[in-house]
Amino acid sequence: MKDPPASTGQGDLQDQKISGYQSSLGVTRTQTVALRGVQLQSGFTFDQVEVSYQTLGTLSPRRDNAILVCHALSGTAHAAGLHPETGRPGWWDFHVGPGKAIDTNRFFVVCSNVLGGCDGTTGPMSPRPATGQPYNMDFPSVTVPDMVAVQEKLVEHLGIARLFAVIGGSMGGMQALAWAVRFPERVRVCVPIATCASHNAMQIAFNEIGRRAIVTDPNWNGGDYTPDRRPNHGLAVARMVGHVTYLSEYAMTRKFGRTLQTPVNAVAAEAALFTVESYLHHQGESFVSRFDPNSYLYLTKAIDQFDLFDGQPPEEVLRRVKARFLVISFASDWLYPPAQSRDLVRLLKRARVAATYINLETLYGHDSFLIENPQFAQVVRHYLENEHRRASLKEAGGAI
Amino acid sequence: MKDPPASTGQGDLQDQKISGYQSSLGVTRTQTVALRGVQLQSGFTFDQVEVSYQTLGTLSPRRDNAILVCHALSGTAHAAGLHPETGRPGWWDFHVGPGKAIDTNRFFVVCSNVLGGCDGTTGPMSPRPATGQPYNMDFPSVTVPDMVAVQEKLVEHLGIARLFAVIGGSMGGMQALAWAVRFPERVRVCVPIATCASHNAMQIAFNEIGRRAIVTDPNWNGGDYTPDRRPNHGLAVARMVGHVTYLSEYAMTRKFGRTLQTPVNAVAAEAALFTVESYLHHQGESFVSRFDPNSYLYLTKAIDQFDLFDGQPPEEVLRRVKARFLVISFASDWLYPPAQSRDLVRLLKRARVAATYINLETLYGHDSFLIENPQFAQVVRHYLENEHRRASLKEAGGAI
Repeated sequence: MKDPPASTGQGDLQDQKISGYQSSLGVTRTQTVALRGVQLQSGFTFDQVEVSYQTLGTLSPRRDNAILVCHALSGTAHAAGLHPETGRPGWWDFHVGPGKAIDTNRFFVVCSNVLGGCDGTTGPMSPRPATGQPYNMDFPSVTVPDMVAVQEKLVEHLGIARLFAVIGGSMGGMQALAWAVRFPERVRVCVPIATCASHNAMQIAFNEIGRRAIVTDPNWNGGDYTPDRRPNHGLAVARMVGHVTYLSEYAMTRKFGRTLQTPVNAVAAEAALFTVESYLHHQGESFVSRFDPNSYLYLTKAIDQFDLFDGQPPEEVLRRVKARFLVISFASDWLYPPAQSRDLVRLLKRARVAATYINLETLYGHDSFLIENPQFAQVVRHYLENEHRRASLKEAGGAI
Repeated sequence: MKDPPASTGQGDLQDQKISGYQSSLGVTRTQTVALRGVQLQSGFTFDQVEVSYQTLGTLSPRRDNAILVCHALSGTAHAAGLHPETGRPGWWDFHVGPGKAIDTNRFFVVCSNVLGGCDGTTGPMSPRPATGQPYNMDFPSVTVPDMVAVQEKLVEHLGIARLFAVIGGSMGGMQALAWAVRFPERVRVCVPIATCASHNAMQIAFNEIGRRAIVTDPNWNGGDYTPDRRPNHGLAVARMVGHVTYLSEYAMTRKFGRTLQTPVNAVAAEAALFTVESYLHHQGESFVSRFDPNSYLYLTKAIDQFDLFDGQPPEEVLRRVKARFLVISFASDWLYPPAQSRDLVRLLKRARVAATYINLETLYGHDSFLIENPQFAQVVRHYLENEHRRASLKEAGGAI
């Protein structure tokens, strides 16, 4: 198996300066739009939600080539291309661009920061209209369907009546699933990757460890921290937990093994002895510089609460679906094990939803969708092309 | 598969009051001995080391029935029976006692708290001879072979020239391995369970997350915390990480699933929504009341540093071994995956060491050796009985 040349960690492309990295998209920008009247599942209504988003490629005259890319927990609207200020590539630059898995020569790609996030879309850091002070923990609770409701308004704002596809990994996959169920008429193709219909107890447990690290950091202060006293230690530990769960034993052994950080074989019990330890510290610190601790609490809670079926019979829920599915899992993903994707596919098939399932034999764990991965790129690219051809033929009155 | 009736967590028997639990050993006590002149691998020498230990059963007139039980990270000298003060069972009460896996009717069981621990044996909490103040982070670095060197002195003190067996799981298994290599003449049988010859990068990573949670807790204070300002939050998070890695997805799904903590389906983002979250909080808090944070740093560091071969050719190291081995792993143990045990067995075989290997199909993860487990008990009991018979025959000049 070919090595991923640069990355083994979720969001690595955001968190690491990769020397000499070139994006075929060059510099790309995000923009912001204010959408009015967003009601949440909890009943809370925002008069206005700011949404940070990016578009790549060109919307076709028939407006039938739009793909919504949904980001995972630590993602942003900046999916691909180089950030105009930091010069860093977007989190999915490996797979979004001309000739890539999601081909911007062919498709019009939209990616927006989720509701509750911290990269331009309304979230806990945003000012309350009444006071101008940040919401912090008074921000209303956010669900995956709430994220999707905001995206639906954004898509409408962009003049797209029907998305060609919704695609995403991990939390992004949950959004894709919610789209297919909640807006069946507005999605042709759904591509959930390395995700599940609902978290199991172990997935919840790992998220809760991260949340606990944050809220027991004295600087958290009930969510009312100040820029100079943030719960950075707690957030860094949360990220370290997350990061390890995104990797595989193989990836870590291959990258670090038992390589010592210092030639000395004895250090103080609190210091890093092995390179893997320093690497984790770096991941934690790098994340802290770009992510809001309260946002981490809200988004992980939304992920844990997500239940595609919400207590209803899966067959009934899925019978509403009009989209065709490509479900992808990774054999080495122990956080979102393939069994969860297989369960989903079984339910889709039972509800007579067209579903293709591929379990890719990559060795890099949950992160496999974020790293350079020619096999993954080929599967996605091929599927999207075929489905786009099929849709065009159908529109033209063809017999498929 | 029969459910374990009480426990799914490492050290659960210590951390949970199990209503109506009866130990066939009744109340058991630990005692303390001062051993003189202990030199560590680092070169540091203790004039005196206090060791807390427990003995169960009766040493035979020929002194050939002693089994040293080595505890894991969170264990103590109190292996079995009920604690005279707390009334709680010892950490291995399921498997040590009359007629149990380690049969105290037949064997004389010794279990001691490890060097660097916090339950009666000299460790970071112990007073420095010169000042009477605790060592804290000035405690010398401790290795698994150092722990074993202290145990060897204890065994000598008890008048045992040769142990019939050394047995332990996880960190206890590392001690068993170190015994067989360092004191080949003093061990007949070695039973390493759910362990490995050295940690891989992922195992190190999980330990480092726990350590990081402790040392970034402001109360840690460079290790000089006071009883009323301990880094309890950090230690609790460390324990939560550890605890989840000791379990399996199956065990957690079975025990908790997505059961809600409160009937309300919406809570503040920092509160527990699911029962698995409250359970983890409880595990963290319960651990904090009985474990020393600095000791956690020292012991996890010893585990990470442990390398049975220390850069030497495994075959050369193992050629010194005289013990016969029973190596046990658990199919659902993802923290110490069976592959590590298989690797060890392969090396033992190559060095012509007699080794029996069993991978048990339990579904309860790394914790499988700590919980009630008839299959495990039978394998261990049967092996020890057979080997004891074999050894007796050999002593008597038999032909085996």
